[in-house]
Amino acid sequence: KPHVSTLSLHSLFELRTCLQTGTVLLDLDGYSLIEEGMITPDLRDKITFVLLRKHRHQTKKPIHRSLVDIGKSGSSNGSEFPPVLQLTKIPRDAEASNVLVGEVDFLTKPFVAFVRLAQATTLGVYAAFVSLPRFLFVLLGPQGKAKSYNEIGRAIATLMVDDVSSFQYVARDREDLIAGIDEFLDEVIVLPPGEWDPKIRIEPPKKVPSADKRLNVFCNYVLLKSGKPALRPNVSSFCGGLYLDIKRKLPWFLSDFYEGFHIQSISAVLFIYLGCITNAITFGGLLGDATDNYQGVMESFLGTALAGSVFCMFGGQPLIILSSTGPILIFEKLLYEFSKKNGIDYMELRLWIGIHSCLQCFLLVATDASYIIKYMTRFTEEGFSSLISFIFISDAIKKMVGSFKYYPINTDFKPDDVTTYKCECVAPDPTVDWSQLSKKDCLRYGGSLVGKSCKYVPDLALMSFILFFGTYSMTVTLKKFKFSRYFPTKLRKLISDFSIFMSIMTFVGLDMLMGLKTPKLIVPTEFKPTRPDRGWIVLPFDKNPWWVYVGSAVPALLVTILIFMDQQISAVIVNRKENKLKKGCGYHLDLLWVGVLMAVCSFVGLPWYVAATVISIAHIDSLKMESESSAPGEQPQFLGVREQRLTGLLVFILTGVSIFLAPILKYIPMPVLYGVFLYMGVASLSGIQFWDRIKLYMMPSKHQPDFAYLRHVPLRRVHLFTLVQVTCLAVLWILKSTFLAIIFPVMVKPALPSAALSPRDLIQQETFDQEMSRTGVSPDLSYEENCTESCSLIFRFII
Amino acid sequence: KPHVSTLSLHSLFELRTCLQTGTVLLDLDGYSLIEEGMITPDLRDKITFVLLRKHRHQTKKPIHRSLVDIGKSGSSNGSEFPPVLQLTKIPRDAEASNVLVGEVDFLTKPFVAFVRLAQATTLGVYAAFVSLPRFLFVLLGPQGKAKSYNEIGRAIATLMVDDVSSFQYVARDREDLIAGIDEFLDEVIVLPPGEWDPKIRIEPPKKVPSADKRLNVFCNYVLLKSGKPALRPNVSSFCGGLYLDIKRKLPWFLSDFYEGFHIQSISAVLFIYLGCITNAITFGGLLGDATDNYQGVMESFLGTALAGSVFCMFGGQPLIILSSTGPILIFEKLLYEFSKKNGIDYMELRLWIGIHSCLQCFLLVATDASYIIKYMTRFTEEGFSSLISFIFISDAIKKMVGSFKYYPINTDFKPDDVTTYKCECVAPDPTVDWSQLSKKDCLRYGGSLVGKSCKYVPDLALMSFILFFGTYSMTVTLKKFKFSRYFPTKLRKLISDFSIFMSIMTFVGLDMLMGLKTPKLIVPTEFKPTRPDRGWIVLPFDKNPWWVYVGSAVPALLVTILIFMDQQISAVIVNRKENKLKKGCGYHLDLLWVGVLMAVCSFVGLPWYVAATVISIAHIDSLKMESESSAPGEQPQFLGVREQRLTGLLVFILTGVSIFLAPILKYIPMPVLYGVFLYMGVASLSGIQFWDRIKLYMMPSKHQPDFAYLRHVPLRRVHLFTLVQVTCLAVLWILKSTFLAIIFPVMVKPALPSAALSPRDLIQQETFDQEMSRTGVSPDLSYEENCTESCSLIFRFII
Repeated sequence: KPHVSTLSLHSLFELRTCLQTGTVLLDLDGYSLIEEGMITPDLRDKITFVLLRKHRHQTKKPIHRSLVDIGKSGSSNGSEFPPVLQLTKIPRDAEASNVLVGEVDFLTKPFVAFVRLAQATTLGVYAAFVSLPRFLFVLLGPQGKAKSYNEIGRAIATLMVDDVSSFQYVARDREDLIAGIDEFLDEVIVLPPGEWDPKIRIEPPKKVPSADKRLNVFCNYVLLKSGKPALRPNVSSFCGGLYLDIKRKLPWFLSDFYEGFHIQSISAVLFIYLGCITNAITFGGLLGDATDNYQGVMESFLGTALAGSVFCMFGGQPLIILSSTGPILIFEKLLYEFSKKNGIDYMELRLWIGIHSCLQCFLLVATDASYIIKYMTRFTEEGFSSLISFIFISDAIKKMVGSFKYYPINTDFKPDDVTTYKCECVAPDPTVDWSQLSKKDCLRYGGSLVGKSCKYVPDLALMSFILFFGTYSMTVTLKKFKFSRYFPTKLRKLISDFSIFMSIMTFVGLDMLMGLKTPKLIVPTEFKPTRPDRGWIVLPFDKNPWWVYVGSAVPALLVTILIFMDQQISAVIVNRKENKLKKGCGYHLDLLWVGVLMAVCSFVGLPWYVAATVISIAHIDSLKMESESSAPGEQPQFLGVREQRLTGLLVFILTGVSIFLAPILKYIPMPVLYGVFLYMGVASLSGIQFWDRIKLYMMPSKHQPDFAYLRHVPLRRVHLFTLVQVTCLAVLWILKSTFLAIIFPVMVKPALPSAALSPRDLIQQETFDQEMSRTGVSPDLSYEENCTESCSLIFRFII
Repeated sequence: KPHVSTLSLHSLFELRTCLQTGTVLLDLDGYSLIEEGMITPDLRDKITFVLLRKHRHQTKKPIHRSLVDIGKSGSSNGSEFPPVLQLTKIPRDAEASNVLVGEVDFLTKPFVAFVRLAQATTLGVYAAFVSLPRFLFVLLGPQGKAKSYNEIGRAIATLMVDDVSSFQYVARDREDLIAGIDEFLDEVIVLPPGEWDPKIRIEPPKKVPSADKRLNVFCNYVLLKSGKPALRPNVSSFCGGLYLDIKRKLPWFLSDFYEGFHIQSISAVLFIYLGCITNAITFGGLLGDATDNYQGVMESFLGTALAGSVFCMFGGQPLIILSSTGPILIFEKLLYEFSKKNGIDYMELRLWIGIHSCLQCFLLVATDASYIIKYMTRFTEEGFSSLISFIFISDAIKKMVGSFKYYPINTDFKPDDVTTYKCECVAPDPTVDWSQLSKKDCLRYGGSLVGKSCKYVPDLALMSFILFFGTYSMTVTLKKFKFSRYFPTKLRKLISDFSIFMSIMTFVGLDMLMGLKTPKLIVPTEFKPTRPDRGWIVLPFDKNPWWVYVGSAVPALLVTILIFMDQQISAVIVNRKENKLKKGCGYHLDLLWVGVLMAVCSFVGLPWYVAATVISIAHIDSLKMESESSAPGEQPQFLGVREQRLTGLLVFILTGVSIFLAPILKYIPMPVLYGVFLYMGVASLSGIQFWDRIKLYMMPSKHQPDFAYLRHVPLRRVHLFTLVQVTCLAVLWILKSTFLAIIFPVMVKPALPSAALSPRDLIQQETFDQEMSRTGVSPDLSYEENCTESCSLIFRFII
């Protein structure tokens, strides 16, 4: 079991004495171990004996077998690798050192030798079994002090693997070796004996500081600063930002594809695909309702596929997932009602709005307007993503609760009274027998349903709950499995990566096993517009008067602002520093493509798309890379995200061909997918520092995790900061849900649409968002100032 | 946040130099700080200045406020307590030491002073704010080396709180102080800089070795030895064991009551009470079936209350919970069938068996036969308790699965076809309308049920599952809450202690909220024998021929062996070393009371009782004590079990008065109680080392917990040992469940009765148990030998 070696200071000093008094042979020829020329005459006999004795072992068996043989007299192996298992993890250019300690009966005082061979016998895999080590430390002494010799052996072994001085390589003579030990001693960390039990094995740390960093133990933390990447404004030149974006992204374009070939990508694609089609179906259904099927589920699927794949192919940040969002839905609803009332052709009007909005986006791109987002601080960013996560969670739960309303449970049912429960179709004309009609037919033909069981649907609500909660909790459990003690790291990582897929499969399987008629995922199976009287192409002229073509620029401005804010805030959250993205961001390029897609979607009558925060975060989470730990005990490090275009592209290609996947998809119950949505919401919350700080409230200070900011900012101030954030969020949430919503804009872009959103929210939201970005957010202010300013802003809005 | 202070070796050496060159003032009068007599002339001015400067701070504000004031020049407080919060945890006789370090501009070389006051100004609670500290370390130096001074300050502060040398108390002069540091240095534990990041704060260890123990780092572990208490055979004297038992237990008798007054007892009583009445109802129902209600639920309740309370009052190990067990149930069934067939009066025959068995128990007590259990090793003990836990778990799950059979779900139900579902009662005479009759009445009067919905019961099965699984998983989650980071330790402990109660309440509440007719806990409400034709007293004569009185000694022998094994194996498991019981065991006394209760229960016609392993383990688990951690960062230690008679007594008194609690108990759904049973089974498994070792199979060696035996026994041998145990258990389980059960005895005492047990199992089980105890189990053998012997024993049985 790997652990940090705890040495006693005593043994280090003894080792120092050993090297001072013992024999030191540096840069010996690899095969001259038993030569005697360099050794002082009085020690020759003994050393020869010892070396021969050792040599005999070496020739008989591989070297670390011989250690087992002389185990009786106490031995310790410096590298401490278990014989075979870990060998595959040793790099090819590794060198070995052997530490041989023991007590013998023929010596009266300890004999010490440190040998370095001139030739570095590098070790390939398995070479350890046959090759000579480069370094050799021998300590033989009189009997009775085996424990002490053993400790000295452990000390030199630790020194040999320590990277502090590499003294064993650079040493020219005995003094250099001693100096190496002194250097080691100088940097050594000391635990007081009264506070620590040396028997406890210390787990290897997550990360060991490099040798040069260690010199500066007290490094400075940048506290509570927003994690967005640096964006230097470049307003002087036309399209300067866009040019820089393309220049930044182009060199990565090839690697954006081949870096996607990894098993992790499969799980990411499956996960995000299911999220996307659930979203497409939900929004498609709502859009169909809102626009009398001018845009329905079919359009939603096609639009998602088209917009998503184009954006993932050419966008500035291909990790962003485009999706329908709540505000757009509300806007479409308003627009359709307006055009119906005023006799204006909806599709044509929509096309012109799309064109105008596209041009306005181009203008924003050309003027480098996206630099505005550099005024976003952690405060605002966390507020946005928390609120969206909360809406995601609350919507998932609402959907679940909805199924209890949709499938009411008969709580009065007594098994014994089964004979009194029935539901009969009674025809308006009492002489006709309609009892064979189904519920729908009965109601359609004007019959009435009579009986105790008419209102109720058995089992489905409870089964839905089991599927919903089961999927969620199994995903959470499997996701955590990475940190369990069971199974090898790779298998655990695989289970963790595929946790969502495995949970979905399990509960789809359970649902099939039970055979209940739970609501299933039904995708359209025919490639045709939802409304039969519209085609695939919308023509720009002929149907509306000319002033509509010009006047549509006004609503288009609203859409543009909406899209700009939605898109760029999501992008900031995706690009946050914590994700360690290496390929840079591309805000201007992102916006360019969103604008282009606006126009294209308008021409073919598909919905408009914009970045979806929660699904994008889920996308990133499912692509996180960790270092493969090479030495036993080394902790895996978070390296970054698999930044590539392949997963996104595959997700949207799959979405496009979902029409053909309908026979498979129809087995997936909707409650399972709501469970996945709940997981997405919760998971995107847990990546936010704000959420960590909320948890701090409930922890006594001694149990708090060792966050960097806690060491440097007093706890009370951290709490105050969090409290202000919580208050702001609570105020927003309440305002969003109450009648005040009419006068107060909400910065909401629900990914699952929230029915509570009133149309006017939408318009005023923009003003607020802008104000928020403009005022409350200078990154140069301290966090309290930011905080105070943002809050005063909110209160200014209220009063 | 408490953590182990990591020092740099460098600072320790610097401190040593400081004390060598600086001023040392020992045993100063408490109020003579600014006197100048003892100070060498050349230092006088500066010291006076420093002391005055410091003194000014002391008088102005409490001492550790002044540290904040001089914070600008760098300061460190040795004891590191946060100002107010932790003060209540400081013992009254604590002494303070203050470390003041800083840089000033008027000094050219460092000034160092170590002061010990003669008078120990002890600190009560809050006294820290006003009193002078006993020890004072001052280090002032020229500017630019604040970091180094700070490290030295941390070093002396750590030294002051370390218990290694107490050098600050015993030192007579400067040399003693230096020697103290050297002693500290000698025992110090060293971490190599390349393997550890000094910025990481090390969590305080579970346990710190005492100063004298530290000297012997390599202590020996007793490996894989059975944890039963020492039992010296004392066969020479009549009733010697019983005498020793009473002598051992009597002094504790009073404390057995007053030690029960603790909030933990409440949760234990509620938990065990619910377990007991569920068991009483289950067994009562089965006994009623088996004996034509000669013994029913009423007798089961009364018997449990009577036997349990007497045993908890006077038994040798009051933590043992008596209960009905499977083998006894099967015996009663056989006995009733035998007496019915042969025209013998059952109750009278049973009375005589009880009397004989009681006398046989007395004989076993008098001859100290209980010493036989000393031949039980960890191997056998773990096998027994695992098997019983598995049976508990499998029975709980069977009960749950049963509810899906009892309330079948109509998986073909389509909400639209609700009109075709009904269930009508059709009378044998087609002219009569029986449609108003309930299901039961219909079948009673000979009607037939016609319709699609007759076979099905909606919702109840799924609701039962939610209640069952919810109770189990909520209990597990809350139980683990003790180890979470949230809330103060006491609250967490409370939540963990009351986890089962809270889970039961939650799901009873949920059940009430849903209002479904889930099966509920129904206890008898009238105090009368279940069968109207029997009274409360069984008379010994008149009904059976005389030879029955004598001959009943033969079946009595069977019962005695059964009881003896069941009782004593459970007692060994309860008394196992891991539970750290302090009041000792009482095997002979236990058996005496079980015997007495046999006779008493026979006279009043109540069932017989014997120790129930799983419930007893649950009883112990719910009474475990942990030390209240006094200093911040100190880990709570497992101290032992609240050994007392009060909780058991209360459980059985409550069981007795359950007749009056029926209106409350009827709200508890049975699935919730099955969830509790599942938890009991799983929890009793997790306390077994065998189970820990099974888990090792799935862990790569680097993730394995740091078990003592893993350091000393090669992993392969541990695995081999476990494998043999698993094989034995699997063989037993298979034999128990297959046709071979007829020829092979099973050492089963299911607490929830298992229908798979055939009568013959019972008889041969005894022989096997005995053989097992007699042969396979010498504690002097190594674990492999034990293992091999036990297994060869099993195979001998098979072949």
